[in-house]
Amino acid sequence: MNFGEKSVAVREELGGLISTQSKVSVTNKEELSTYYSPGIAEPCRRIAKDKSLSKILTVRKNTIAVVSDGTAVLGLGDIGPEAALPVMEGKAMLFKAFGGVDAVPIVLATKDVDEIVDIVAKMSPSFGGINLEDISAPRCFEIEKKLSEMLDIPVFHDDQHGTAIVVLAALKNSLKVVGKKIEDTKIIISGAGAAGIAIETLLLAAGVKHIELADSKGMVCCAREDLNSAKRNFCSLKCGTMADGVVGKDVFIGVSKGGLLTAEMVKTMADDPIIFALANPDPEILPEEARKGGVKIIATGRSDFPNQINNVLVFPGLFRGLLDAGKNKVTTEMKLAAAEGLANLVTDPSVDKVIPGPFDEGVATAVAKAVETAE
Amino acid sequence: MNFGEKSVAVREELGGLISTQSKVSVTNKEELSTYYSPGIAEPCRRIAKDKSLSKILTVRKNTIAVVSDGTAVLGLGDIGPEAALPVMEGKAMLFKAFGGVDAVPIVLATKDVDEIVDIVAKMSPSFGGINLEDISAPRCFEIEKKLSEMLDIPVFHDDQHGTAIVVLAALKNSLKVVGKKIEDTKIIISGAGAAGIAIETLLLAAGVKHIELADSKGMVCCAREDLNSAKRNFCSLKCGTMADGVVGKDVFIGVSKGGLLTAEMVKTMADDPIIFALANPDPEILPEEARKGGVKIIATGRSDFPNQINNVLVFPGLFRGLLDAGKNKVTTEMKLAAAEGLANLVTDPSVDKVIPGPFDEGVATAVAKAVETAE
Repeated sequence: MNFGEKSVAVREELGGLISTQSKVSVTNKEELSTYYSPGIAEPCRRIAKDKSLSKILTVRKNTIAVVSDGTAVLGLGDIGPEAALPVMEGKAMLFKAFGGVDAVPIVLATKDVDEIVDIVAKMSPSFGGINLEDISAPRCFEIEKKLSEMLDIPVFHDDQHGTAIVVLAALKNSLKVVGKKIEDTKIIISGAGAAGIAIETLLLAAGVKHIELADSKGMVCCAREDLNSAKRNFCSLKCGTMADGVVGKDVFIGVSKGGLLTAEMVKTMADDPIIFALANPDPEILPEEARKGGVKIIATGRSDFPNQINNVLVFPGLFRGLLDAGKNKVTTEMKLAAAEGLANLVTDPSVDKVIPGPFDEGVATAVAKAVETAE
Repeated sequence: MNFGEKSVAVREELGGLISTQSKVSVTNKEELSTYYSPGIAEPCRRIAKDKSLSKILTVRKNTIAVVSDGTAVLGLGDIGPEAALPVMEGKAMLFKAFGGVDAVPIVLATKDVDEIVDIVAKMSPSFGGINLEDISAPRCFEIEKKLSEMLDIPVFHDDQHGTAIVVLAALKNSLKVVGKKIEDTKIIISGAGAAGIAIETLLLAAGVKHIELADSKGMVCCAREDLNSAKRNFCSLKCGTMADGVVGKDVFIGVSKGGLLTAEMVKTMADDPIIFALANPDPEILPEEARKGGVKIIATGRSDFPNQINNVLVFPGLFRGLLDAGKNKVTTEMKLAAAEGLANLVTDPSVDKVIPGPFDEGVATAVAKAVETAE
């Protein structure tokens, strides 16, 4: 049985991967009177006087929503809310397993940006944070921006920032290995969706000076007239194909699709090229092929190669830190701190170890601590 | 420490009463690949082809939402979504403890009927059922009606129908004790909110022929011009005070407020009067006072007197049955069957035992079985 078949078989048996559990027992009248009526009226009264107590006296203290409209699920695209639910559940499972965070999957039967914003805002008193997931670009940018401004709980679009944080952490260690400085590094990002835009934004904040973006039509150059506002913000003077953009670059970051990068193209890059080929399950270039082109460091999204760039390194610890410190926004400083904390977990970075593995000890704790102490 | 203080103390320590748990372990790459990427894509693909599979392969199989806008919480009234959250959590705790149902508390920051309907409908692909809770009348009637028509999962407003089902069960056994027939029984209901209207509706369906309704202004008589549409549906020719309405009745059912019924009024009722004084925590009449008026059977909502009319006897088993049988509507037949199943659990009804206690064995199972077999 392959992973997919096994995944279905387990779900047929268990009916989903997560469940709720009570933290207290209810086996006699005394407990029923304490945890339900009449005792339950007292926490209600106190919160009615001071809403902020809901973050202390209720599930809000440790519960977030994992929200999706099912428009950009894995490599499957716009498959709708019902079909997206397994992923949100799986994410909730990982939140608990790696970060001790209670997460509730919420899939929405609407693709309208304003409706999604409105629904999430109106259900937000139920939660201590919102993790947006698998919402297509450029809609995801607006949804996240509006919700972050409106709500007094943290909002985080994992496909954007989770990926960006892990990429930055891996980049920091990769540059240590090849002995290059971040401000001198020339980077091309293939893929200008949620992840690509967020990676460029975070890398610029981290001190990278030279980044170019490519999409399925080639270089995202300002002369093009088909750019959405997110792409336009990052357009460059250089036009041409993605292959043109790769020439002379120190780093290739792919968040696009399988097989776009060839060994021949890798040969045109600067010395000691670094490649993060993150398309899943088929990377932009396979490690074997990249080595033919003379790559120095290659990372992928896959668990069967070294250097797995995996969001699970970030989101559980990030929300652990946000909830523990009572933060109500996710700031750029927190993202930079999380990447730094993650990078520092690898004490001696090498070609085959630029990022911790998901089961390495202390990952979530390091990210949580970084987020808690950042402003 | 009283129940309220203890309730707050436990919540301060635990931060809410429920949490999520994973049904599987995620401690190695094999498990991560099965339960998350890449294995997770396969259940997504299958559901994308056939949405109904989401009720088998995801949390929808056993998870419902407990939804409130916080407008009619306990006896506290319109205290808002944050302050209502402890009750929804407590309810979720009881769903799990008594029915094995996973329940997620969702409180909404809107009181607009159409908005509530829209939000719940759009999040419904996340759940296998919707339990509405503590939403004020008459808004609750419209919300439940619209959602029931729109959704392909069961919708149930517990304050209405949970109460009505337990009342009917207790009434059946009470009538056995006093030897009266349901079709000859004359009933007055004090309280024309969510519970009062639902009780009248269900009792009529169960064969009661003579019911009159009273609200805070007296008898709900058709000559009044201040009646909402729900009350107008059930208005009677008899005007006057509630005390006028009590005269000659076999049964008084109070879902109104403490102290409305006196021993003198009880004396005006028919022989062997039956009183369900369900206002909480202060019943319409205390058992001691009712006995002065010659009551035969008295039930209350409180656990410290015999015959506790408690919704917890119904909602866990009801949703257990709905989910297990894959029902997508809650029908009148199911409510009648649930009441009958509940009543029959008391093998030898007596003045002090007309309804099972919440910790009596087999309650949820009996209700579930009744719901499963009804159409």
